Amino acid sequence: MTQGPDAQLALTPAAQAIYDTVRDLPIVSPHGHCDPGWFADDAAFPDPASLLIVPDHYVFRMLYSRGVSLTDLGIGVPPEARDGRAIFRLFARHYHLFLGTPSHLWWSHVLHDLFGLSDRLTAENADAVYDRIDAALKTPGFRPRALFDRFGIAWLATTDGALDGLEHHATILESGWAGRVIPTFRPDAVLNPQAPGFAANVEKLGAMTGCDCGSLAGYLDALRARRAAFKAMGATATDHDVPDLHTEWLDRSEAESLFSAALKGRIAKGDAVRLYGHLLIEMAQMSLDDGLVMQLHAGSSRSTNRALLASHGRDMGADIPHRTDWVGGLDALLNRVGNRADLTVIAFTLDESAYARELAPMAGHWPALRLGPPWWFHDSVNGIRRYFDGVVETAGYENLTGFNDDTRAFLSIPARHDLWRRAVSLHLADQVGRGLFGKADALHLARRLSHDLALETYRLGA
Amino acid sequence: MTQGPDAQLALTPAAQAIYDTVRDLPIVSPHGHCDPGWFADDAAFPDPASLLIVPDHYVFRMLYSRGVSLTDLGIGVPPEARDGRAIFRLFARHYHLFLGTPSHLWWSHVLHDLFGLSDRLTAENADAVYDRIDAALKTPGFRPRALFDRFGIAWLATTDGALDGLEHHATILESGWAGRVIPTFRPDAVLNPQAPGFAANVEKLGAMTGCDCGSLAGYLDALRARRAAFKAMGATATDHDVPDLHTEWLDRSEAESLFSAALKGRIAKGDAVRLYGHLLIEMAQMSLDDGLVMQLHAGSSRSTNRALLASHGRDMGADIPHRTDWVGGLDALLNRVGNRADLTVIAFTLDESAYARELAPMAGHWPALRLGPPWWFHDSVNGIRRYFDGVVETAGYENLTGFNDDTRAFLSIPARHDLWRRAVSLHLADQVGRGLFGKADALHLARRLSHDLALETYRLGA
Amino acid sequence: MTQGPDAQLALTPAAQAIYDTVRDLPIVSPHGHCDPGWFADDAAFPDPASLLIVPDHYVFRMLYSRGVSLTDLGIGVPPEARDGRAIFRLFARHYHLFLGTPSHLWWSHVLHDLFGLSDRLTAENADAVYDRIDAALKTPGFRPRALFDRFGIAWLATTDGALDGLEHHATILESGWAGRVIPTFRPDAVLNPQAPGFAANVEKLGAMTGCDCGSLAGYLDALRARRAAFKAMGATATDHDVPDLHTEWLDRSEAESLFSAALKGRIAKGDAVRLYGHLLIEMAQMSLDDGLVMQLHAGSSRSTNRALLASHGRDMGADIPHRTDWVGGLDALLNRVGNRADLTVIAFTLDESAYARELAPMAGHWPALRLGPPWWFHDSVNGIRRYFDGVVETAGYENLTGFNDDTRAFLSIPARHDLWRRAVSLHLADQVGRGLFGKADALHLARRLSHDLALETYRLGA
Repeated sequence: MTQGPDAQLALTPAAQAIYDTVRDLPIVSPHGHCDPGWFADDAAFPDPASLLIVPDHYVFRMLYSRGVSLTDLGIGVPPEARDGRAIFRLFARHYHLFLGTPSHLWWSHVLHDLFGLSDRLTAENADAVYDRIDAALKTPGFRPRALFDRFGIAWLATTDGALDGLEHHATILESGWAGRVIPTFRPDAVLNPQAPGFAANVEKLGAMTGCDCGSLAGYLDALRARRAAFKAMGATATDHDVPDLHTEWLDRSEAESLFSAALKGRIAKGDAVRLYGHLLIEMAQMSLDDGLVMQLHAGSSRSTNRALLASHGRDMGADIPHRTDWVGGLDALLNRVGNRADLTVIAFTLDESAYARELAPMAGHWPALRLGPPWWFHDSVNGIRRYFDGVVETAGYENLTGFNDDTRAFLSIPARHDLWRRAVSLHLADQVGRGLFGKADALHLARRLSHDLALETYRLGA
Repeated sequence: MTQGPDAQLALTPAAQAIYDTVRDLPIVSPHGHCDPGWFADDAAFPDPASLLIVPDHYVFRMLYSRGVSLTDLGIGVPPEARDGRAIFRLFARHYHLFLGTPSHLWWSHVLHDLFGLSDRLTAENADAVYDRIDAALKTPGFRPRALFDRFGIAWLATTDGALDGLEHHATILESGWAGRVIPTFRPDAVLNPQAPGFAANVEKLGAMTGCDCGSLAGYLDALRARRAAFKAMGATATDHDVPDLHTEWLDRSEAESLFSAALKGRIAKGDAVRLYGHLLIEMAQMSLDDGLVMQLHAGSSRSTNRALLASHGRDMGADIPHRTDWVGGLDALLNRVGNRADLTVIAFTLDESAYARELAPMAGHWPALRLGPPWWFHDSVNGIRRYFDGVVETAGYENLTGFNDDTRAFLSIPARHDLWRRAVSLHLADQVGRGLFGKADALHLARRLSHDLALETYRLGA
Repeated sequence: MTQGPDAQLALTPAAQAIYDTVRDLPIVSPHGHCDPGWFADDAAFPDPASLLIVPDHYVFRMLYSRGVSLTDLGIGVPPEARDGRAIFRLFARHYHLFLGTPSHLWWSHVLHDLFGLSDRLTAENADAVYDRIDAALKTPGFRPRALFDRFGIAWLATTDGALDGLEHHATILESGWAGRVIPTFRPDAVLNPQAPGFAANVEKLGAMTGCDCGSLAGYLDALRARRAAFKAMGATATDHDVPDLHTEWLDRSEAESLFSAALKGRIAKGDAVRLYGHLLIEMAQMSLDDGLVMQLHAGSSRSTNRALLASHGRDMGADIPHRTDWVGGLDALLNRVGNRADLTVIAFTLDESAYARELAPMAGHWPALRLGPPWWFHDSVNGIRRYFDGVVETAGYENLTGFNDDTRAFLSIPARHDLWRRAVSLHLADQVGRGLFGKADALHLARRLSHDLALETYRLGA
């Protein structure tokens, strides 16, 4: 008798019938953080700890919160100095902390489906599990491209800085491999005047494009050039981290003067926010020209733990959401371009109180606006339930965008899409049970939410 | 075998037993936006599109959000230039957008109960459905008064501007028809200094009442006179749109000086908000004198799409809620009159995060304060569930006010009350199932929530 | 045939199986407002109204909201002038207002388990119920210590002002009675410059400790001395009411200058908030030295009904929650001491929108931070459900702190812990049913949440 995974979102019979129709659909992953180098080089992944623990802030932040040292977990330690087995043991000893979290579900799925392990990870079986994973990772079937195919991934978008030369993407394209791995244009470092090294980044942008980035006009040309270069490599979207959501259309002279101040590093914080808000509208306008879908990830206070930022850098689990005013924050952008049905702006929020109050009414009105799937902390059983609960009655389903896994944990991609498909099936079965629509509607919507909407919204294969 | 409606909120057996006791209670509709002219003239309604689609921003905003032109839907098009059948076809082709929304439930109910149609509206059956509705609307049984009686409406309050002469209401009263259609005093245009044409409106108010509205005292007298005129026509309530909730008691000289500046159109935005906040308290004080119930609808950013405002006017689906601070916003009003149990102030919010945090504790303390039912976007299956979930534990049931349909879509009034009664029955059956009270309590509360509380709170028939 | 209580949170069979394993665990009550004098004197409680109604703002605020006079309920009336029976009758007549509230569940439990009454309290049986309770209260089995033992209370923390001499606690310790009743250090009156009589309170603090509180250094020494005195009486925690959450580390000279201004009563409101924010960090730093757990209860606007404050004083049911910015508010404190795993700071919120957005991510990152249980209005069936729904997926269970009853209504302590244990059992059974973990996990977590976490987090018996 075969055993299932340690934990897995259970389905009612009605939900199971829906899930059976979408479980094997190809995976469309239009937003995430995988390393394109994996697919360019197709080299074996490193040891289990360096692959599964060290880079995953979902995982190590929880141990840190209960007093475990990041250094003991290999964070900030050079790969060659890490003791993978010791890190794995330490993680296993604290694995019970994840009960009730999506990480537990993802790990259960990965251990079971990829490595054939049904038992919970414990201090006792840590070594055996480590050995099993380590051995598998050394086999050809666990190389990045083999896994990509095995996972049934139709599209995988990475996230790449505007200054990235996209060499890995070029290598992939030239390799003849059929896997569709495409870049996403993420210009924060050259667009947000508060980004560390902004002026130097803009200078690099000028050098890279041959544009004179000393003037606003030249700088905008340079951005257009980079967008075109990304598009040539297959990109269909841009992505923007917006810590404090604000958009504002500046008149030309003020925009030029603030840009000039920003280059000199002499811009006040408030003006930097205003300039960034203006440049986001410029991005939206460029999207009208080049067709790139615009993603806005707004409302996370980044690196709130300053000691940790100093000692270990960014992305250490100390990015904490705050309230976001979507009505005011997008006012200028939407009033400039929001009535254009040929533009797609996707909003991602960490402030769930805005789902029913602001975002669903906005997505249910503005032709350009779509609602991204539940993001980050909310990509979870309850998070997905609260999302449907809050948005569907006002925005309907067709103003949504399907699913994003948003992960750098490549091995967990099938687990995340599976959880989404299970949660979608539970939601739709519940809607049918409540009399809101019929089974045929549910099957149709399940496919839309699991596959089609992501493909269409991100203009993949168009 | 008879078929049910295309979609309808399903009931558990326990909920059905509760629902059976309230489904046929008379409809009490103490707040809404029907046109009193319908009942004064009792003329046949126009074609299906002009009745059911063109005036309903719940409906056309959804199509607009997916790229359909408002003009193609007849919005802003003179009735004589509209092609009702073409509009209906366009709507039908996009009807699937409403899956999961309350509009779908309301339409299903209307099509089934009024027109005998069980099938979903589609592009294919659009013409047949249009013809069926069109034919029915031409029969005497579908005249406004006949429908009013058929719907079992005990009370229907309309919403009327302070400058409205109430001629339709006078006609209804004089007609001898027994239907109780009463006005509601909505003075936004003469009370909010930011209302378009405020000074001219106040001048009309003076002319209408014979009061000298050049002084604050005369202006307040004029408002008293209009309230009295509304009361004479049966009004039991006032209603106030409060975009940015703020109340503040100004001393006499400052109030006079701000009022004078407002008349001259020379008032700063902040001062306009303060003056409006003062005048709202004046309204509450007049309510203590004349007994009119005071309704506050707060927290909607109106007409956020400025291009649409310019081309098509207000109420185009671009009113978007924002966060509302009820504690601070009502502080001055409640500290002036909130301890009076003979005053009734009803608060309506679009910021559900305030239900459990602010409004339920406030309604559970202040004698004057009651909580309005879930408003607008939240008048839905999940919206009603979240409302009970958030408010009952702190405010109980007797600080609530039953239901408002708040609609200008007359034909949907039974559908909306039916949905409320179904949702109430599900809620109460759930409470019984959780052991919180017994079946007899549930039956009692079902009647309170479906009928009595609205009647009592709005002092109807008192 | 024995009857159960009038109302009680019902359990599914799976939840019942979990509940059976925790229902009889000792009660750990690490935060509450019982009067230590009860256990020092062990005198009989007064009449039923003075014990159960007059001091309970959960109860009398609801009657006040529906127009009942507080004076008629004995509030602000000297005990000797109260007519207990008349108060009880008035309460009974309005008892139906509590349907759907936790007060109804608590009262049902108390009436049933303590006084053997299964019927709902009504106007008709009010006298009989009053007599039954009154008679019981006069028996030795209903003396405070006897009830303490009968309730199975392992630890009971009271809340005591910094200037409290702790005489009752000394009496208890010296009495030889085994009941563990310990104080909690609550220094608001000497720590918050906006507290009424702040300067006079600080002067008393100086007199009490022999420290020169004219200087900041002496004042801090005095606080250290009082903390030590509390610790000597068994205290393991401090508690802080923080109306407007703000922390900020001031440099020495600014801290001294603001402190000096505060003593002179010449400090602006903004500066008072800043100084309090600084002193809260000083408290956290003292906790690192003396090991006292730090509790922050933030976000309640106190005494919002100013007429009632003037006539009846504080705690009259007019404390209303407002939005709380936890990310910004704790920024300075956490960046100073939040990385210390040997510090425990417990955050209590009334703004549930912060659960998933801010508090769970923060507790899931900072070693020092733990999440307190649902507080005040949210200590209820739905409040507990929303809490688990919002926090567990991001913070897990081990960053929580079990339960606090937070009550001054001693007789209701078992009722409140029972409701928590039932709600916990329902939550865990639901998690098992959803496949998130197994039954053994649920039993383990039930014990952690009902007993162990409170004991460990508050360092009781350590």
